[in-house]
Amino acid sequence: MPPTVRRIPRPTAQRLSLYLREIQPLIAQGQPTISSRELGEKLGVSSAQVRKDLAWVVQSRQTGESGRSGVGYNCFKMNDSIRHVIGANRRWPTVLVGVGNIGRALLAYGGFAQDGFSIAAIFDANPRMEGKRVGGLAIQPTSALRKVIRTNRISIGILAVPRSAAQVVATQLCDAGIRGILNFAPMRIAVTEGVSVTNVDVSVALEQLSMDISIRDQLRLSAEGAA
Amino acid sequence: MPPTVRRIPRPTAQRLSLYLREIQPLIAQGQPTISSRELGEKLGVSSAQVRKDLAWVVQSRQTGESGRSGVGYNCFKMNDSIRHVIGANRRWPTVLVGVGNIGRALLAYGGFAQDGFSIAAIFDANPRMEGKRVGGLAIQPTSALRKVIRTNRISIGILAVPRSAAQVVATQLCDAGIRGILNFAPMRIAVTEGVSVTNVDVSVALEQLSMDISIRDQLRLSAEGAA
Repeated sequence: MPPTVRRIPRPTAQRLSLYLREIQPLIAQGQPTISSRELGEKLGVSSAQVRKDLAWVVQSRQTGESGRSGVGYNCFKMNDSIRHVIGANRRWPTVLVGVGNIGRALLAYGGFAQDGFSIAAIFDANPRMEGKRVGGLAIQPTSALRKVIRTNRISIGILAVPRSAAQVVATQLCDAGIRGILNFAPMRIAVTEGVSVTNVDVSVALEQLSMDISIRDQLRLSAEGAA
Repeated sequence: MPPTVRRIPRPTAQRLSLYLREIQPLIAQGQPTISSRELGEKLGVSSAQVRKDLAWVVQSRQTGESGRSGVGYNCFKMNDSIRHVIGANRRWPTVLVGVGNIGRALLAYGGFAQDGFSIAAIFDANPRMEGKRVGGLAIQPTSALRKVIRTNRISIGILAVPRSAAQVVATQLCDAGIRGILNFAPMRIAVTEGVSVTNVDVSVALEQLSMDISIRDQLRLSAEGAA
């Protein structure tokens, strides 16, 4: 019987990654410990939230750094535990499906190599693209997805196809045994249970900005009204 | 003297946007109210967090829906208050700087029009690109940024230039009076105080996936160890 797998809440996962970014410079500066309050202040979350998130790391790893009252968390241990839990020490070869504008931008960039990610193989549904070389890789037909993913034990697929093809390719990736999909297509894709999806959604990003600007306007207006 | 403007914490802003997405189908189904517990469960956050976030809306707007004990929040009023606070009722023309792969992908997509966003003008630092038409717009030199932004009262700039040019263009945008920048360049940009930045960061998105997968592996291993 497969074990029950409890999934980490997405906001917690995001914060763990942010905690990591905050404590790395501290380690470089030689700071041995950090309190949940101090860490929370850096990210605008409560110390209770920080403690809850870090308890999750301890629970997942069944070991790790639980923090000591009045002393705080050991930065080294926290760094090590979080990196271990979130897989920051592993290599992550990925497949890219869709060699259009976004796909080419990703191939040209490649800056995520320092985080352990690489594009190991590229695919396109258009038969005319087959065999063309982009970024040092030859474009393969999507019919080869299954073999490439299984042979190379690839966990992550990058979906950079038009909206019209997104669901078909997402299903192909799931059938081929992929475990996570980075989706650039502007729609929600349906996936097999247990497959993670992260959407890179320009609308959501724009909404965050418009929200910030609007809220500042609201506050300015109320401050002026109160004056 | 300018009023003191308190900035909404980014996690709160993100959740407000998610609350909106959850309550819109409820309104369509005719559900009149929702409890903080119910809303929290949909998004995996505590009911206390929901109440805290929505109190922020009331405070910013100095009116709105505060929720009633035992009754919950009125979905219509909550929808209206959040939309108002986050600026979802406004039109947001933007400028795009950088007409490379990412810029072209954004121009070709245009699916964020339904959320009130549009690309009103496009710019590139390469003088050879000047005057070329992409997506129905003529590419302008970055020297024209200031005039276009001021004349058309544009709040948001989309930064889709290479890393090497990102800071220079970000500074030009700030000097021209932009209020928010959507940054696709894989680096943190420095901006004038009061300018919001949202980074579309592929590394962070990939990290979320690798984290999900690793954590599932951890849990599976510990379940197997315990069995």
